[in-house]
Amino acid sequence: MSEPAVILVRPQMGENIGAAARAMLNFGLTRMRVVAPRDGWPNPKAVAMASGASRVLDAAGRFDTLPEALRDCHYVFATTARGRELTKPVMTPERAMEHARALAAEGKQVGILFGPERTGLENDDVARADAIVTVPVNPDFPSLNLAQCVLLVAYEWRRQAAELPPEAMALAGTDFATGIEVEKLGDHVEDVMARAGFFFPEAKAPSMKVNLRNMWGRLPLTRADVQTLHGMLRQIVRWRDGGPT
Amino acid sequence: MSEPAVILVRPQMGENIGAAARAMLNFGLTRMRVVAPRDGWPNPKAVAMASGASRVLDAAGRFDTLPEALRDCHYVFATTARGRELTKPVMTPERAMEHARALAAEGKQVGILFGPERTGLENDDVARADAIVTVPVNPDFPSLNLAQCVLLVAYEWRRQAAELPPEAMALAGTDFATGIEVEKLGDHVEDVMARAGFFFPEAKAPSMKVNLRNMWGRLPLTRADVQTLHGMLRQIVRWRDGGPT
Repeated sequence: MSEPAVILVRPQMGENIGAAARAMLNFGLTRMRVVAPRDGWPNPKAVAMASGASRVLDAAGRFDTLPEALRDCHYVFATTARGRELTKPVMTPERAMEHARALAAEGKQVGILFGPERTGLENDDVARADAIVTVPVNPDFPSLNLAQCVLLVAYEWRRQAAELPPEAMALAGTDFATGIEVEKLGDHVEDVMARAGFFFPEAKAPSMKVNLRNMWGRLPLTRADVQTLHGMLRQIVRWRDGGPT
Repeated sequence: MSEPAVILVRPQMGENIGAAARAMLNFGLTRMRVVAPRDGWPNPKAVAMASGASRVLDAAGRFDTLPEALRDCHYVFATTARGRELTKPVMTPERAMEHARALAAEGKQVGILFGPERTGLENDDVARADAIVTVPVNPDFPSLNLAQCVLLVAYEWRRQAAELPPEAMALAGTDFATGIEVEKLGDHVEDVMARAGFFFPEAKAPSMKVNLRNMWGRLPLTRADVQTLHGMLRQIVRWRDGGPT
């Protein structure tokens, strides 16, 4: 599976290039290309900001023009918020990275363009892309900076890589109590609470007991929970029988 | 549909609070709560950084303690990267926001906790949550800052705006206890069990208490469950004080 290239077109501030490198590496992307960076290359401010992600900058390709940076790309996405007069598919990051994965799985090189901080991509840049990616931001407050935009696209790339269905992760490692363990806990609670005079009046006792059993049965108790509750009950009896107040 | 509250726990830098407000508003979230902000409240640096999103700060609630901030919450997510010894479901942002939408669709108040910049949430904070949210970052470069973490969770909330998961049906009609109700139950249990001498030896008492809070926080207790447990505790005390054996 070939990894997409993140292509920063005429980036301005070194700090933003460094932050973009961090955002890429957060989600496992390592291929950066830089087109006509305003302040030259390498950029010490970018390196300082990238910190632990400076290897992304070290390996980055530097190009004078966008077409040179796209030489080996089979498919190019242009990230832009503004509507365009250009006829071009417009996708969410989700849909775009789904498509990118399908292309990458076939060994295709995908490029993702990000424009200069202040102005974004020009029509001349976008014209070189196969599709537009637009993040579904709040139209009343659409401002995303360069690194945030990279972060969201990289997140989508990785999110879709997860081989485990999200549900599988949810309860991994939890040692739930078995039926017999919950049953014995229910017995213990019922016994102590009966001695404590909880099931009163007598006519209501059966339904109170059923409701308590139902509660223990419904709650996702772990083995540790069950042990804790047994310990609490034992201590309550010791207390009753003359322990500390 | 009730919108989740973004709860910043002991945030340090005003700039990060402002950036978090921007990240929220980018994806249409407006409800911020701030717990014990290090530099007081309101925070001029937060306002300066928030810029167009300063209305999120203006409307933010300021709380001294986490339990106060969770009073009306029916379900709480804790964002944390580190593995925990606490037993708690661990979800991706995707799965978590899917669940949050199902809850919100029923009018339930959801809270999402974000920890202090340097240290993240403490176990005592996480113990009050129903589930943990972990962003699936590159394990070799997992550093996400506070605003980035808020951005990704807010993005997931909005991304799923169009879809209503089937869980919405499954939870219909269940009258879950709110944060303040679970907190008071936790207080009551702790009080009675302390009187009963359960938290022994003293050196282990704090972790025993956190584990108990974690259990109540994690279990999907209904209002009726909470009332039953209060009733059991009251009866135990009456028994101790000379009731029937």
